[in-house]
Amino acid sequence: MTEKLKGNVLIGQSGGPTCVINQSLVGIVLEALKHEEITGIYGAEYGIKGILNETFFDLGREDKATLEKVAATPCSGLGSVRKKPTGEECHRVLEIFKKYNIRYFFYIGGNDSAETAHIVADIAIAHNYEMRLFHVPKTIDNDLLVTDHCPGYGTAAKFVAMAIMGDNLDNRSIPGIKVDVIMGRHAGFLTAASSLARKYDDDAPHLIYLPERAFHVDRFLADVEEVYSRLGRVVIAVSEGISGEGGEPLYTTGEVDSHGNVQLSGTGALGDFLTNLIKTKMKTKGSLRVRSDTFGYLQRSFPGIVSEVDAREARLVGEEAVRQALSSGGNGSIALRRLNNGKDYQVEAFLTPLSSVARKTKLMPPEFIAEAGNDITEAFVSYARPLVGSLPEIGRLKGIKVAKK
Amino acid sequence: MTEKLKGNVLIGQSGGPTCVINQSLVGIVLEALKHEEITGIYGAEYGIKGILNETFFDLGREDKATLEKVAATPCSGLGSVRKKPTGEECHRVLEIFKKYNIRYFFYIGGNDSAETAHIVADIAIAHNYEMRLFHVPKTIDNDLLVTDHCPGYGTAAKFVAMAIMGDNLDNRSIPGIKVDVIMGRHAGFLTAASSLARKYDDDAPHLIYLPERAFHVDRFLADVEEVYSRLGRVVIAVSEGISGEGGEPLYTTGEVDSHGNVQLSGTGALGDFLTNLIKTKMKTKGSLRVRSDTFGYLQRSFPGIVSEVDAREARLVGEEAVRQALSSGGNGSIALRRLNNGKDYQVEAFLTPLSSVARKTKLMPPEFIAEAGNDITEAFVSYARPLVGSLPEIGRLKGIKVAKK
Repeated sequence: MTEKLKGNVLIGQSGGPTCVINQSLVGIVLEALKHEEITGIYGAEYGIKGILNETFFDLGREDKATLEKVAATPCSGLGSVRKKPTGEECHRVLEIFKKYNIRYFFYIGGNDSAETAHIVADIAIAHNYEMRLFHVPKTIDNDLLVTDHCPGYGTAAKFVAMAIMGDNLDNRSIPGIKVDVIMGRHAGFLTAASSLARKYDDDAPHLIYLPERAFHVDRFLADVEEVYSRLGRVVIAVSEGISGEGGEPLYTTGEVDSHGNVQLSGTGALGDFLTNLIKTKMKTKGSLRVRSDTFGYLQRSFPGIVSEVDAREARLVGEEAVRQALSSGGNGSIALRRLNNGKDYQVEAFLTPLSSVARKTKLMPPEFIAEAGNDITEAFVSYARPLVGSLPEIGRLKGIKVAKK
Repeated sequence: MTEKLKGNVLIGQSGGPTCVINQSLVGIVLEALKHEEITGIYGAEYGIKGILNETFFDLGREDKATLEKVAATPCSGLGSVRKKPTGEECHRVLEIFKKYNIRYFFYIGGNDSAETAHIVADIAIAHNYEMRLFHVPKTIDNDLLVTDHCPGYGTAAKFVAMAIMGDNLDNRSIPGIKVDVIMGRHAGFLTAASSLARKYDDDAPHLIYLPERAFHVDRFLADVEEVYSRLGRVVIAVSEGISGEGGEPLYTTGEVDSHGNVQLSGTGALGDFLTNLIKTKMKTKGSLRVRSDTFGYLQRSFPGIVSEVDAREARLVGEEAVRQALSSGGNGSIALRRLNNGKDYQVEAFLTPLSSVARKTKLMPPEFIAEAGNDITEAFVSYARPLVGSLPEIGRLKGIKVAKK
C-alpha cells in the first residue's frame, strides 16, 4: 500500500462550463471531507488564473445545504478560464502549491485541462514535490479519449434533443427550411444528439451534418432540395464545426484563444451563411421561408433541465478522483466504462493516465455516422439514449380528414 | 335569451405558435362537446389556408387521451399560417362556412387573426348568414389590447427568464460581454421578462433594451462601459424590435410577410451587429470577449417547460370562447382580467368586441420602463411574476477567501 499524503486539496474548474460541472466539484469536496489526511479543501477562482493570483476559497467552510444547491446549479461555481499556462507559469503554479501545502490538485475540465495537469505533474516530479494531480472530466462536446462518454454531455444532449423537438413542432406548424447550429468544435456528438428528438416518421432533424465529414455545399443543397420536395419542410441540424474538404471552417470570426481554438460560438454567422446559401442557390421556385437558430450558450448553461444519469456520473467522477488520488499513489484522470451495453445501463469509473486524455480529441466513430454523411446511425441512438434520460412526450392529432363537399 | 344556433364548429390556429396554444384548441373542443347544438367539431389545417383549401380535420373523432397529450405539446397542432386573406378570399371563406354549415368559428391567434375574424364577421352580417366568430387570444409577445396579458406569454417569459439565469451563470464563469436577443416585434414584454432571472445583486440582465424606447448607439455603449467597469462583465437583454429614433429597425433582412411584418427572427444579424459595435467602439482597452445569442424560435416552441398558470389560462380562454359564442348572441374576443393584483393572483375571462383587439398592438406601459430606458421597473416584476410561476433555484458558494501567504 502507498503511504497516504497529508495536506490540502485544491480544486479548479476550467474551460466552457456544463450544467453538471458543479456536481463534480461537490463530489470532490464531500468525498475529501471523509479523509483525515486532507487538512483543508480550497477552490481556485477562475481555474489556473486564480492559482497564479492565489485567490482561493475555503470550500471546507461551506455548509452541506449550500454545496448541494450549488451542485444542482449550472456553470462553474468557482469561475472558469480559457487559459493555457506558459511553461514559466506552470513552474510558478508548483511554487504556489508548495507554499499552500497543496498535495492534491483536481482540475475539472476537458482535454486542455488534462494537459495543464499533466504538465504541472511532470514539473512536480522533476522537483521531487510529492503530490497527486488529477483531471476530472467534463465537456458538453463528449470529445475526451478513453472514457465511454463525458459528464456534461448527457445534459447538453438532452437540451439539444428538446430544442429540436420543439423546433420540429414549430417547423411543422409553419413549414419552411430551418437551420439549427449546434455546439461541437471537432466532435459531432452534440449535434448527433438532435436525432433523439425523432418520434414520428417525418420528425426532425431531417438532415444532420457533423464536423467528422467534409461539408460539400452542392451535396448539402441537393439534400435539402430532396427533403423539401418530399415533406414540404426541412429542419437541419448542423455542427458549428463543419468544414470543407480542406478542413477549414466555412465561417469563423477569426478570434482565437490561447489554446489555439477558433471562436465558433457566440455568433449567428454560420446559420446566416447557410440560410443565405439556401435562399440564393436552391432550385425550388417561389419564396422559400428559410430561418436559422444558433442554440449557443444555452446548451451548456440552461437551468432546470438535467439528465439524472449525467448528474449522478458527474458526482461520481469527482468522488472517484479523490478516492484514486488517495489510494493509487500516482496522478491520473477518471474515465467511465459502460458495463452493460444492453437493457440495464450501468457504468463504473476507473483511473486512466493523464497522458491518455491530455490534448487529444475523440471524434464520432464511423459506425455512428450514416454512409451518406448527412445523418447518424441507430448505433449512435443506442449509445446516446441512456445518457440523456427521459424526454417530454409529444402528442399529435390523429387528423381524420373531413370529406370535401 | 338568444336562440341557440345549431351547426358545426370550425377552429383555426394562426400566426407564430406558442407552447400552450393547443391548450386553447383542446379547451374549445372539450367545451364544444358538452353542447348538443354543436353537431360537429372541425379543425382547419394551417388556419385560413386550410379553410380556403377545405382541408378540415374531424376533431370530434379524436379521443380524450390524445387531445390531452396534444394540449401539453407546444406549437399549433392544426398547423398555422402567416396569411392575411384578401377581400375576395374573405368572401370565399364565408361561402365555405355556408357549405359546411359552420356556425361557430374560433380563430386562435394574435391581433392579425382577430382582424381576419372581424372582416369575415362583417361579411357574414352583410350576407345575413347567422354565425358566431370568435378570436381566442394567443401570443408570446403579450401585445394584445384589452386583456391583462395573453396566453402564451407566461410560458415564453419563463423560458426567457431561465435562459438568462443560465447565461448569467455562464457569463459569471467566464466573464465577458454578452448580448442576448429576445423576440418581440413592437412590444418589449418578453425582453422585460429577462428581469425575472435576477436573484443576487450582480445578476443579469444588467441592461435591458426595449422596442418602446428609441435605441441610441452612444448611450448603449456608455451603459455597457459603465457596467463593465463596475462588474467586469455584462449581460444585455435586447429586443429584436429595437429601433433608432426614426423608428426603423437597426437591422433587418428585408423580408416582409403579407401582414407587412418585417422578418426579425431566424437570423443572428442583430446580435452580430451589436457585438461588432461593442468590439469596435468600446473605449475599454484589451481584448474584450464579446458574444451574442439569439434565443430564436426556442422561445415559442421549447417543450417540457411550461408556466402552469399560462397553461390553465390558455385552456380557459378556449372554453370561455365557446360559452360566450353560445350565450352572447354575437361575435367577440376573450380577454383576461386580473381580479386581485396583490398576493392571491386570480383572473376571470370576459368578452370583448373583435374591433377592440383587431390589428392594434399593446406596448409596455411607461410605468413598466425605467426612466433611463435601459431597464424595467419593480411594477413590471410584480405584473409578470405570477404569470411565469416558479423558476429553478440557483445556488452560489459563500466563497470565503483563504488568506494569502
